[in-house]
Order: sequence, then C-alpha cells, then structure tokens
Amino acid sequence: MTDSRTPRVLLYLLDLIGVAVFAISGALTAARTGMDLLGGLALASITAIGGGTLRDLLLDRHPIFWIRDARYLVVILATALLAMLWSACLPPLSHALLAADALGLALFAISGAQVAEAGGHSPIVVVLMGTMTGAAGGMLRDMMSVQVPLIFRQDIYASAAIAGIVAYLLLKAAGVRPSWAIATGVLVILGLRMGAVLWGWHLPRLHSVG
Amino acid sequence: MTDSRTPRVLLYLLDLIGVAVFAISGALTAARTGMDLLGGLALASITAIGGGTLRDLLLDRHPIFWIRDARYLVVILATALLAMLWSACLPPLSHALLAADALGLALFAISGAQVAEAGGHSPIVVVLMGTMTGAAGGMLRDMMSVQVPLIFRQDIYASAAIAGIVAYLLLKAAGVRPSWAIATGVLVILGLRMGAVLWGWHLPRLHSVG
Amino acid sequence: MTDSRTPRVLLYLLDLIGVAVFAISGALTAARTGMDLLGGLALASITAIGGGTLRDLLLDRHPIFWIRDARYLVVILATALLAMLWSACLPPLSHALLAADALGLALFAISGAQVAEAGGHSPIVVVLMGTMTGAAGGMLRDMMSVQVPLIFRQDIYASAAIAGIVAYLLLKAAGVRPSWAIATGVLVILGLRMGAVLWGWHLPRLHSVG
Repeated sequence: MTDSRTPRVLLYLLDLIGVAVFAISGALTAARTGMDLLGGLALASITAIGGGTLRDLLLDRHPIFWIRDARYLVVILATALLAMLWSACLPPLSHALLAADALGLALFAISGAQVAEAGGHSPIVVVLMGTMTGAAGGMLRDMMSVQVPLIFRQDIYASAAIAGIVAYLLLKAAGVRPSWAIATGVLVILGLRMGAVLWGWHLPRLHSVG
Repeated sequence: MTDSRTPRVLLYLLDLIGVAVFAISGALTAARTGMDLLGGLALASITAIGGGTLRDLLLDRHPIFWIRDARYLVVILATALLAMLWSACLPPLSHALLAADALGLALFAISGAQVAEAGGHSPIVVVLMGTMTGAAGGMLRDMMSVQVPLIFRQDIYASAAIAGIVAYLLLKAAGVRPSWAIATGVLVILGLRMGAVLWGWHLPRLHSVG
Repeated sequence: MTDSRTPRVLLYLLDLIGVAVFAISGALTAARTGMDLLGGLALASITAIGGGTLRDLLLDRHPIFWIRDARYLVVILATALLAMLWSACLPPLSHALLAADALGLALFAISGAQVAEAGGHSPIVVVLMGTMTGAAGGMLRDMMSVQVPLIFRQDIYASAAIAGIVAYLLLKAAGVRPSWAIATGVLVILGLRMGAVLWGWHLPRLHSVG
C-alpha cells in the first residue's frame, strides 16, 4: 500500500502518536463538558479513530486500521485514562487541548496524504484526502460535544493542513528523503496552527459585498 | 459471516425490531419538531438505518443490509406511518420516544458486537463497534433535527451499551448459549438506559481541576 | 455499472454540473460566514463531493468518483474561486445560494437514484439512495458552517427529491426514453424546491396531540 521509499514503520508511528494525541484531546473535552468516565472513553476513541477511519473508508482499505490492529484501541484507552486522571487531579496545562488537537491534525493530515499518494493519486486528490483525514477526528469530537468546531473558531485550520501537505509534496518532488519531507510537513502544520492559537494569526477573511 | 453457534435468524430479528423502533423514534421526533410527512419518513429511515449502515461500512459487508433486503425499508415506512398517525390522533405515550430509542440502542449495540465478534475481532474492537452501531442512528436523528443528542443529555447512554456488550461477551466466554447471552446483553442495556431515564441514574461525572 | 439504455455520458454530466453548483453554494456560504480563502475552498469541496461520496461508499463503488477522476476537483476549485471572486467584487445575486443548492439537490438525487437503479435495486431502495445522495452535500455544508441545515428550514427539501425520483421512475416504467425521464425528474425537484423558496410552498406539517 505504501510507497516503497516511504518507511512503512514511520506511517505506523504517525498513526499511533496521532491517535494518542487525539484521544487526549477527546478526553480533555469530555472532562470539560462534564461527561462520565465511559462517555469520556467513547469520545476519546471516536476522536482518535475518526480521521483514519474516513481515510480507510474512502480509499477502500480494509480491514480499517483499528479493526486490523487492536493495539490502536489499547493506546487510545490508556492515553485517555491518563488524561482524565490528570485533568481530575492536577492543574490544567494551558493550551493542552489545542496543542493535542494541532498535533493530531498535523499527523493525520500527512498520514492521509501519504496513503493517498502511495495509491498513485494526483496531487489535488492527495491534498483533499489529507485535509479530510486530519480534520475529521476533531470535527466529530466537537460536533459530539456540541461545541462550535475548532475548524470554525480559529481561522487557520484546514489552511494549515493544506499548506503542510503542499510543503510535503513539493519537498518529495524536489527529491528530499521521504522521512524529512514528512517531518517538515508535520512541523509546518503544527507551527501554523499553534501560531494561529497563540498569536491570533489569520488569513484575510472572505466577505460578501453588501 | 455470523458465528455458526449464533442463530442467524436471531440476528435478522434483532435488526428488524431495531429498525422498527428507531423508525418510531425518528417519526416521533419529526412530529415533535413540526416536519412534513415526507420529511418524517426520511428522518425515520435515516435513524433506522444509521447504525447498521455504519456497521456494514466499517466491516466492509456489502451489499449493506437495507440495500440487500428491501424488507427493512418496508418495515421502516409502515412503522413510521403508524407512529405518525398515532401521534397525530391519540394522546402521547409518556416516554415513548425515549423507550423506542433505548430499545434501538440495545438491539443495535448487541447486533454490531455480534457481527464484529463473528469476524474474529478482539473484545475491545467488538465493544467499540457495538457501541458505535448502537449510538449512530440516534445521533444522526438528533443532529438532523437540530437537538442536543440524547447521548449527551442523559449520563448513561454509551455507558449502557458498553456494559451490555461486556455482559454479553462474558456470558459467551462462560459457555452460556448465544441466544441467552444476546437476550441478557439487550436487557442490561435497556434496563440501565431506562433506569437513567426514569430515575435519573448516572455515573460520577468527570470534572477538571480549577 | 449504468443501465445500458442510460447514456453514461449523461450521468457524467449530471455529476459534473452537480459538483459545480454545490461548490458555488459552499463558496457563497463560506463568504457569508467570514471564512478564509482556503477554508472556503475546503467547504466548497466537501459540499460538492459529499453526496456522490456517500452514494459511492454505500454502493461499494471504488475508487470513489473524485478519487478516480481528478477533473471533478479541478472543476470544483475553479467554480469556487469564481464564486468567491464574484461575491467579493459584485453585488450578490438574490437567491443565488438557494438556487445553486436546489440544482445540486436535483442533479445528485437523480444521479444517486440512477446508479442504485442500474445496480438492480428495488424502487424503494432507489428512492432512499437518491434522496440521501441529493441531500448529503448540503447537510454537510450547513453542519460545517454551523447553520440550521436548509433541509430543516424550508419544508420542501427531502420531499422534492422524493417526488422527482418517483416521477423519474414512473416515466421510465412507462417506457419513456431515459434522458427524458432524467430531465423531467431534475425539473420536478428544481421546480418544487424553488417554488418552496420563492412562494413558501409547503406540505401539511406533522403535529403531535397535546
């Protein structure tokens, strides 16, 4: 499935860290909105598997990653429990939720792009698939906890994913080693997104006449 | 697809009753929110097929149950019409909507768990798949009728599904006959959920420090 | 995949015009709600591919239409950019958003119905599949821009789709040439929907006793 030059183990790592940080963001959201423990585990799981599940469904990759390999769910449950324990006992880390969401967005955007690329699809398909893979988990989390989705509260969200995927594709086209291109793509997304969170960066907004 | 010890006909029955009660819950929601007749049929259909469709998509079972067997849609339309007729002419049954939703949750949670189990998946995958199958129809109904989803209004919802699926798995592991394990799992979910509705049962809520 | 009597090229055209008009509706919604340029392109894309993606997933048609043929995404991006340019520079066309949405609903409802029919499914499955294909893109657009979905603001939406698909099926059963049946179905949906928008047509609403 993956391009032979791309370290398959790197994709696996991206997915594992991606589900862990999205699980943390789901657990913190659950704690903040007063859900119970099992509800928190369910929200963490759905946030964590949302993006990769959409990617696998759209690209017809079966069994879906968390059905094929139960280790993902074990990682999700362990991370979510730790995050809930932390949020019940220790003072909140400022921006922890936003940072976990940004890292999840970055990892899954590049993972989705990479899988689409390995399937031989054109760059425009790769960009859209990556963006959807990155954004789906957080969208589900926000819709299920009845909040205005992050994707609409801060300007740079889908835009950060698009910029990072384009950077990744350009570097690979320029002959850079895949693992460096991957790392750069992830850092571009993470940097743009955290910049938007911390310093209010935003693109010019669209507006209608009249 | 189904485990040879599991009566295949029982799974079919679970699905048929599940779509009927979810169709009722969709029709009652449509009546309550002032939709028109055809809109009510559409909402009843989507509520009724949501969970099983997600189950079949995730497990790559094609054709999807309601595409393979049109009897499901006939049952849905007949039940939804009866429910809309009732709600237009007769006094409302108290808790009818919540009871139909609880029964649908119970039936589809166990059906989703059973199908995942028959595919040879590990218990943790079985529990998550069952929970998602049970909750998806009601979530779609509530999102489409622009209400706060039931899953977030009452504490015990996903939790009831998880408890019932675990009971089902433990009984099967203990050698109990599948149809008894199925019945027990359904009753556990129904009992916990109706207890939460009628007497306000809830688990300890998560809360953040500060 | 398509019925041999049905011009395959017509289905392709329905899909291309369908994605273009839904892209316009997504871009206008993004402009109206103050998203940035890349967010607007993402919303236009998701609105445009939502219905056809659901159709292809449910009917197990892979690769999904916009993954198989990147021309769809090019059409979407070009149309969305033009729509955003228009909305930034020129006075708004009254009802442009509602008209684009109505045409998208009509085209994708008939396209979804046609594909289901070509798969040999029964009329009731064809009607539901067409309705879901037509409504999914607009639902996603409205949910993602945190608006009350159009499907719930105006009475005649799902109903228009159902009526047009039934008209299409009846004409084909009566021996009318497929392209005429398709055109009639599209016009019925468009006419009912625009009538509802312009003159407030609606079906009797459901209401509960007491």
